[in-house]
Amino acid sequence: MAPRRGIKFNHRNGHSSGVDARRSSFSDISEGASQPGSPIGPKSASGSDVALELQEQPISEYEKKKQTFITRTIWTLVMIGAFFGAMFMGHIYIIIIVTAVQVVSFKEVIAIANVPSRARRLRFTKALNWYWLATTMYFLYGESVIYYFKHIVLVDKVLLPFATHHRFISFMLYVIGFVFFVTSLQAGHYKFQFTQFAWTHMALYLIVVQAHFIMNNVFEGMIWFFLPVSLVICNDIFAYIVGITVGRTQLIKLSPKKTVEGFLGAWIFTVIFGVLMTNVLMRYKYFICPVNDLGANLWTGLECVVNPVFVPHTYQLPIWFPYFKSFSMAPMQMHILMFATFASLIAPFGGFFASGLKRTFKIKDFGDSIPGHGGITDRMDCQFIMGFFAYMYYHSFIALYKVSLGGVIEQVITGLSPREQMELVKGISKHLVNQGVITEGVRLPVQL
Amino acid sequence: MAPRRGIKFNHRNGHSSGVDARRSSFSDISEGASQPGSPIGPKSASGSDVALELQEQPISEYEKKKQTFITRTIWTLVMIGAFFGAMFMGHIYIIIIVTAVQVVSFKEVIAIANVPSRARRLRFTKALNWYWLATTMYFLYGESVIYYFKHIVLVDKVLLPFATHHRFISFMLYVIGFVFFVTSLQAGHYKFQFTQFAWTHMALYLIVVQAHFIMNNVFEGMIWFFLPVSLVICNDIFAYIVGITVGRTQLIKLSPKKTVEGFLGAWIFTVIFGVLMTNVLMRYKYFICPVNDLGANLWTGLECVVNPVFVPHTYQLPIWFPYFKSFSMAPMQMHILMFATFASLIAPFGGFFASGLKRTFKIKDFGDSIPGHGGITDRMDCQFIMGFFAYMYYHSFIALYKVSLGGVIEQVITGLSPREQMELVKGISKHLVNQGVITEGVRLPVQL
Repeated sequence: MAPRRGIKFNHRNGHSSGVDARRSSFSDISEGASQPGSPIGPKSASGSDVALELQEQPISEYEKKKQTFITRTIWTLVMIGAFFGAMFMGHIYIIIIVTAVQVVSFKEVIAIANVPSRARRLRFTKALNWYWLATTMYFLYGESVIYYFKHIVLVDKVLLPFATHHRFISFMLYVIGFVFFVTSLQAGHYKFQFTQFAWTHMALYLIVVQAHFIMNNVFEGMIWFFLPVSLVICNDIFAYIVGITVGRTQLIKLSPKKTVEGFLGAWIFTVIFGVLMTNVLMRYKYFICPVNDLGANLWTGLECVVNPVFVPHTYQLPIWFPYFKSFSMAPMQMHILMFATFASLIAPFGGFFASGLKRTFKIKDFGDSIPGHGGITDRMDCQFIMGFFAYMYYHSFIALYKVSLGGVIEQVITGLSPREQMELVKGISKHLVNQGVITEGVRLPVQL
Repeated sequence: MAPRRGIKFNHRNGHSSGVDARRSSFSDISEGASQPGSPIGPKSASGSDVALELQEQPISEYEKKKQTFITRTIWTLVMIGAFFGAMFMGHIYIIIIVTAVQVVSFKEVIAIANVPSRARRLRFTKALNWYWLATTMYFLYGESVIYYFKHIVLVDKVLLPFATHHRFISFMLYVIGFVFFVTSLQAGHYKFQFTQFAWTHMALYLIVVQAHFIMNNVFEGMIWFFLPVSLVICNDIFAYIVGITVGRTQLIKLSPKKTVEGFLGAWIFTVIFGVLMTNVLMRYKYFICPVNDLGANLWTGLECVVNPVFVPHTYQLPIWFPYFKSFSMAPMQMHILMFATFASLIAPFGGFFASGLKRTFKIKDFGDSIPGHGGITDRMDCQFIMGFFAYMYYHSFIALYKVSLGGVIEQVITGLSPREQMELVKGISKHLVNQGVITEGVRLPVQL
């Protein structure tokens, strides 16, 4: 943990320095130090900066750019390889990876707000952080397990009470932590302890909860996990490539290396990539089917009734359209435009947010687990909000509420009173009239 | 807002001073100042403290206690009166009060982290806080309205798309705020802006989300709102009365006025109060029925099939038990013990948490809206966690998973195709004809 807080120089300065004209007291010191002779003010006169300048001087700007590019590319490929390996081996491996990312990111993020000298005197602060994490994960995993494995959980005698009282148990676990936190408050440390409390909750919300949505996407079908993740990675790579190739205009002060050209250029490439990738993935039931068998992998495959968004649909063109009368396309090819656009125009703000945080705490990276990339959190910053979006978009526009007609009829006849049954008939016919399915309302000769 | 930050002396010192031997740098200055001659250290040598000492000296300890008691009692009665008025007039008035409390508490809590000089330079900070509130409330109210008024919302042509895409719309509203926050980040203000972000989210979570559970309790039946609220108030009053009567041992450093005797004594009184109050409330369907008619009030009443927890049940006693063979009791009389215990032993920690926050920010009260009580938040601090508990307990142990008409309509409209919906209408009407509820089948002019 020691090197994290110090000034690190990992060959990632690019053309950034000098752009950030109005340098704030929170700006990243190492970036200022990379350009000898630039007007960096009194801040960089510290010992470590001088050491960095001496070390950096012989390497040219071009050399550094090249080195950065190579290191990042190699590690990007390594990560992509591991990622594909896990994905082909089965959903459970991806779940494990996402869980690991979740825990490491949480650790990285709570570490930056930690003041070791204070934490040492307060024995329980660290334990409490992990307790909150455990409680939150117990709650979230429980929710998913209950939702996706109802048919197993609700039939099991031992699991049933945990399932039916899951939220209450989670709540009481949380309350125990809360009471413990309040009793552990020590005079003279209030500010530190409340900051820890707030910070841990922010980390839980920004990382653990959002990463959990990514996990639920896996359960809905590998494509809902893979597409968002690959779109963000693709966008990141193309923003970098387009940026260093034609980038001139700075996009945002927070991330001085990001350019408007890279931002917009990457959008175009991400859309193209998304359309092509969807076209490929749609052919494999392993990707488009929800997880109904946790033992499945790419070779065994999965079976399901395919969601209509993946089934080609014939769209009629207007009468005045030359040559073509109609075209055929799966609705998913339209939806992917929304995914690609979110990944290109909104998800990067997750990264800017993380950059802002790093500047606030005057750190270069959240950690140093991935060479050339920084901490896990540095690579995942845009993934969290993207996964959340994918979850929301999927459930709002794509998911089918698998309800069987027979099941509904059973519920209605056994669970509703005759009066309610009539209300139902009236309500549904009104809905059918509204939707233009039938022309006239229903006349029920009431005889209650 | 000006008087909030200053040192206020509102006659509430009681027997507290002198107990808190190890006085921290975060301790409440005004409490130290109330006892002239006590060893308060160099901290209280500031100008305002001297002024307070001069002002306070002529009033005796007894006089102050009496004044405190009178002011608090009067305002407690006023609040109880308003509260009962609203409760008898109808659920909608209680919803309005809870909403008002929610908004004012949020305002009070975000105000204490505000640094006016900084906020003035950053135009959007305040607007953004209110934007988060609006988004959160849109999301939460929408959820409740959709849940409790499905049968209306889902049949309405205009409301339907808002209902089916509610979470996505809320998410996008949140994302807009998030992107706006990131773009509004200004060099030199990062720390302030991120603190505001974290603090606003904490306030949303601790106040707005928790208060929302209280609102859902109202919809489940007035008793689920009234019991938790009155148990906390009762506990608070008895902790105060027992505390000033026989209190000797300090309970927690954070709230020096709280005594172990008051804490435990109030528990006993709260249990007794809860049992008696339940016994009374159970007789009124207005209290125990869920809100199926928003126009209902105490005089019109409500009608429903009563939840079995309110129906007396005969419990057999062991064979060796003298004189009595069995006794009759509604299960609710057992549940109330849990409610009363939570209100007595756990809910006060919500108050201690708030005390800790106040000490951290060196304020006496969150506001000054209620004379003798402080801000709304000062009075509500234990209510939030209690309402959350009541919600969780109710849904885990008391709610019946009955098939609701709204639930079925939701399933049908979102999950079945129009053709299946028509099949359902036909099937149910046929069933109603078979049962002799209606004389003739339904004629649906099919036009698919």
